[in-house]
Amino acid sequence: MEGVDYLSDERNKAQFDVEAMKVAWAGSRETLEVSDRMAKLVANDPAFEKFTRPMLGRKELFKNTLKKAAYAWKLIVNLRLSEEEAKCLRFYIDEPAYTDLHWGMFIPAIEGQGTEEQKQKWLPLAQKMQIIGCYAQTELGHGSNVQGLETTATFDPQTDEFVLHSPTLTSSKWWPGGLGKVSTHAVIYARLIVNGQFHGVHGFIVQLRSLEDHSPLPGITVGDIGLKFGNGAYNTMDNGVLRFDHVRIPRNQMLMRVLQVTKEGKIKQSDVPRQLIYGTMVYVRQTIVADASKALSRAVCIATRYSAVRRQFGSRNGGPETQVIDYKTQQSRLFPLLASAYAFRFVGEWLKWLYMDVKQRLAANDFSTLPEAHACTAGLKSLTTTATADGIEECRKLCGGHGYLVSSGLPELFAVYIPACTYEGDNVVLLLQVARFLVKTVSELGYKKPVGTTGYMGRAADLLQNNCAIQTVEEWLNPDAVVEAFEARAARMAVSCGQRLAKFENPEEGFAELAADLVEASVAHCQLIVVSKFIEKLQQEIPGKGVKESLEVLCYVYALFLVHKHQGDFLATGYLTPKQASLANDQLRTLYSKVRPNAIALVDAFNYTDHYLGSILGRYDGNVYPKLYEAAWEDPLNDSDVADGFHQYVQPILKQKLHSAKL
Amino acid sequence: MEGVDYLSDERNKAQFDVEAMKVAWAGSRETLEVSDRMAKLVANDPAFEKFTRPMLGRKELFKNTLKKAAYAWKLIVNLRLSEEEAKCLRFYIDEPAYTDLHWGMFIPAIEGQGTEEQKQKWLPLAQKMQIIGCYAQTELGHGSNVQGLETTATFDPQTDEFVLHSPTLTSSKWWPGGLGKVSTHAVIYARLIVNGQFHGVHGFIVQLRSLEDHSPLPGITVGDIGLKFGNGAYNTMDNGVLRFDHVRIPRNQMLMRVLQVTKEGKIKQSDVPRQLIYGTMVYVRQTIVADASKALSRAVCIATRYSAVRRQFGSRNGGPETQVIDYKTQQSRLFPLLASAYAFRFVGEWLKWLYMDVKQRLAANDFSTLPEAHACTAGLKSLTTTATADGIEECRKLCGGHGYLVSSGLPELFAVYIPACTYEGDNVVLLLQVARFLVKTVSELGYKKPVGTTGYMGRAADLLQNNCAIQTVEEWLNPDAVVEAFEARAARMAVSCGQRLAKFENPEEGFAELAADLVEASVAHCQLIVVSKFIEKLQQEIPGKGVKESLEVLCYVYALFLVHKHQGDFLATGYLTPKQASLANDQLRTLYSKVRPNAIALVDAFNYTDHYLGSILGRYDGNVYPKLYEAAWEDPLNDSDVADGFHQYVQPILKQKLHSAKL
Repeated sequence: MEGVDYLSDERNKAQFDVEAMKVAWAGSRETLEVSDRMAKLVANDPAFEKFTRPMLGRKELFKNTLKKAAYAWKLIVNLRLSEEEAKCLRFYIDEPAYTDLHWGMFIPAIEGQGTEEQKQKWLPLAQKMQIIGCYAQTELGHGSNVQGLETTATFDPQTDEFVLHSPTLTSSKWWPGGLGKVSTHAVIYARLIVNGQFHGVHGFIVQLRSLEDHSPLPGITVGDIGLKFGNGAYNTMDNGVLRFDHVRIPRNQMLMRVLQVTKEGKIKQSDVPRQLIYGTMVYVRQTIVADASKALSRAVCIATRYSAVRRQFGSRNGGPETQVIDYKTQQSRLFPLLASAYAFRFVGEWLKWLYMDVKQRLAANDFSTLPEAHACTAGLKSLTTTATADGIEECRKLCGGHGYLVSSGLPELFAVYIPACTYEGDNVVLLLQVARFLVKTVSELGYKKPVGTTGYMGRAADLLQNNCAIQTVEEWLNPDAVVEAFEARAARMAVSCGQRLAKFENPEEGFAELAADLVEASVAHCQLIVVSKFIEKLQQEIPGKGVKESLEVLCYVYALFLVHKHQGDFLATGYLTPKQASLANDQLRTLYSKVRPNAIALVDAFNYTDHYLGSILGRYDGNVYPKLYEAAWEDPLNDSDVADGFHQYVQPILKQKLHSAKL
Repeated sequence: MEGVDYLSDERNKAQFDVEAMKVAWAGSRETLEVSDRMAKLVANDPAFEKFTRPMLGRKELFKNTLKKAAYAWKLIVNLRLSEEEAKCLRFYIDEPAYTDLHWGMFIPAIEGQGTEEQKQKWLPLAQKMQIIGCYAQTELGHGSNVQGLETTATFDPQTDEFVLHSPTLTSSKWWPGGLGKVSTHAVIYARLIVNGQFHGVHGFIVQLRSLEDHSPLPGITVGDIGLKFGNGAYNTMDNGVLRFDHVRIPRNQMLMRVLQVTKEGKIKQSDVPRQLIYGTMVYVRQTIVADASKALSRAVCIATRYSAVRRQFGSRNGGPETQVIDYKTQQSRLFPLLASAYAFRFVGEWLKWLYMDVKQRLAANDFSTLPEAHACTAGLKSLTTTATADGIEECRKLCGGHGYLVSSGLPELFAVYIPACTYEGDNVVLLLQVARFLVKTVSELGYKKPVGTTGYMGRAADLLQNNCAIQTVEEWLNPDAVVEAFEARAARMAVSCGQRLAKFENPEEGFAELAADLVEASVAHCQLIVVSKFIEKLQQEIPGKGVKESLEVLCYVYALFLVHKHQGDFLATGYLTPKQASLANDQLRTLYSKVRPNAIALVDAFNYTDHYLGSILGRYDGNVYPKLYEAAWEDPLNDSDVADGFHQYVQPILKQKLHSAKL
């Protein structure tokens, strides 16, 4: 039955132009074209096969990744792919590798923190991959708190060198991807010590391994930190451990764009603004938000398709059972995730714009929007990655028992995704940073006009006073009313935190004591951003039959799902009455019915190949059960009818001869 | 530094008698003694080493499990362990194996559904393990809906046999543990067909493999279904696929305790009540609740200890950083889980009593409490397994980046635990069953007195009318007030659902439409049960200095955490005012401070060995970082300085010779 589309009935139900939705999802026709071309390039090349990956032992797995990375680099060079195409290609290969860190962290660190001279020396080597680098910041005992790093870089004016050293066990570098087995170089973050004085934490380019035989250089202990969550997942990556025993590097290998150490051991601050690093953080975090929408949409695509294939209960007169996607319990868990995937996609698009805006302003020495942009990206990184990690696992559960099979693709997707909740800022730590900014904004309202995503705080007096006016189910589809509900909730929670903090003599103590409530206020603020950016998106022109209408339904699903989930906030702040909250919930149920006929088409619009999805349950053609059945026989345990070990360890039990068995 | 206890300061802070708490947790001094003895037996025997497990390929892993299972069985026989001890031993071996299904499902199925004659024939064989069996119910296309199973067992009066057949691909048996490679026999659930008539789904004892050479018998296709979530986890189990091609078994292998098929093809209902199966479900589900408390407490033990070891930020004057367990954000996530572990332990203990009660009543033909007991266990199975699965992942996140390492023990614990949300009733399907029972109870209130855990519904009129009277933070420690809050919320939500259902012409349509709200009402009901059983527990005598006081703190943490988490329910139903909800939250923060000094001792009371925990982060002595560092070097990737694959796949890139490399 190859070639049959078991989901064609579902596809025929769609009330919008799927091709136009693909463009809306991708952002532009050009982006879609590149993405589509790269995805197919990967999917059609057997070199990128990934089905057997979870079955490989660690060594084989790692070797296989090295092979794929080399093959991909050869393709990139031979096909003369642009930077964008190469990035897209690596994305669809869908296998964490040292190259991610080389291109994504090592090179950008030099670009951002190196002097012109340093860039001229190191970038060409890195761009041709004559050296391979990684980014070594975190240590065994130090994650979020960069200022707490222990590795030292002590200037020796006698030899004009820095001496890198790991003074304690906890100062061992720990986690950097690509460090364990591949990188020849690293940007190392260490405490700069000049004349016995500490001058902050800075980056240093350090060669780790010989370019001849790849053996670690003298004074360097380096290796892999061991297995991580999942089968394949991040185990294709050589996250590493690294210790220095008084390793010397030339002075000019400290990245000196912001701070310079002269030959004489003088410290010179350059006129480059330190805020630049925040600009980089905005950049990195907006890419994480973009990745969240990709990971969540992938899980949702699998769960939605399989929910249409799978039938359970409700058979009438011996007919087929009900498709599980028709159950309201399924819809009320799945459709908000589908809506979240779109919401995160659009807020990610907006963040990309925000980053460009910040960059331009920085270039013009305008730092005025930086704190707000920084808080906003920190919060959205936290919000979207937490929701995505939870959402992937929820999608797995929505697939019933079969979601537990590796061949469903969901276990590996979960395992490979969840580090996003921790890296580049622990999600709770980030929300506390947002809270700090919110509380500050509130305390300054009397004399400072809030900007950007905190602009609504300027209307705090109104938002605190006026309660929701909604009286009918229909009014919950009014964009202004919905945004105002989120604004009022966020403003009231932030102001309430501010008021309670003011009662503490020591503000820091208050902040520590109320931390859990502050986190909730931050979440409210961040959800407002996502909802309002989705609504703003819908105020733009979006071509294609039915496209905008379908997105509108998703937008309100996202918003009203949050109203229901967090109705405690809306009721506790007094903005909504129980009746109004209940109307929102009624509207939400109606919206689910509107999503239903479009569900399959809405996930088709992500334009994912079966290769990328890597899921039998999520197959485009819906031909799930025969393929699950086939795949089972590929397991090594099925190589023989009688399992290896049977004769030694089971037969003696059955034959009651265990006493004489060798165990 | 071996032998140093890095957590001794924490242990010295404890305000209660840890040994007495161990007894309270275990249930009795005898249970503690057995558990302690078995745990140490396993921990001290190198045969049960499990550290390297996640590094093994599937075949090696499976063979290793067969070896351990044989070794364990030999121990059980040689040491003449009691049934309880043997079960406890298998629990601490902590490795899913075919024996779990043999002892836990195959034998009980025969005991419960077999006639005396069948029991006499099959049980001795099974108990000596001369045959090994599994329990084959689910099919590739059929999980929750047992009545939808497709496998047929057709009676052939000519030969006095049943013909077992798999008429479709989706009728392939799929998932049964122990089926894939080990079991010689199975209890197969199939549609009984006699004289062309369907007579319901029943169990049949079927031999699958030759007792001589273990090869599958004619007409039988059997194998493993492939990899599942995680590295080791459930991959030590041979979950299987099975197809029948007209396989014949003697008539007397149908389990005929409840329904008999005579030689002549007559159907005879025995006088054994069909409700017996519900009794079995109550039994199985109470063991699942007990296991939930074990799994959650294990994760909480790891996260709590590591939260005391780990320090982050807050260093003053160069002193040590703050222990992360001192942060309110950490406490507000961790302590409710600690409290939940205890809450689930005690509700599990009560469920064990409930099962005994049901069993006695069934023996006396009293079925009156069965529906309530069935709904109650279904609901608690759903509630505790969902909270435990989520809680394990939350504990992993609470350990920061290192929680992602397999050596933290948490990834494997998560992977091995999560099937509990799906097996023995999908958690959402179960909550819908509870909802059905609640709605029925509500509709019958006028003339039928609700019993057991729904007893409070008898006071529905009062619970709907009287709102909470709490005015101070302190009153939130009043047990009656707390229970009443949960009763009022549950009653109001159930009644509201009932009222809204009544508006539908077709009740089934209404039930489907309002399913998501019904699920929320069920959750409210189940949380009430857990809270009130915890409070009841505290009304009993609990010996030991400070033990009861510490448990009281945990009880209110559990209850008030739920009040805060679900404040939307409490406010929407009008039972609480925002002010009262806020007081509950203030009390909760105070309670966290009371848990803090006892936290380590509260997890020590679980009495888990380091072997069972299987976590470097959760080590009893807190000596985390040196052991993490040591463990890293055990990874196969560190066998050599230069990784396998470097010369083929990395060197050519560095040397710019990729064009001529063989890829």
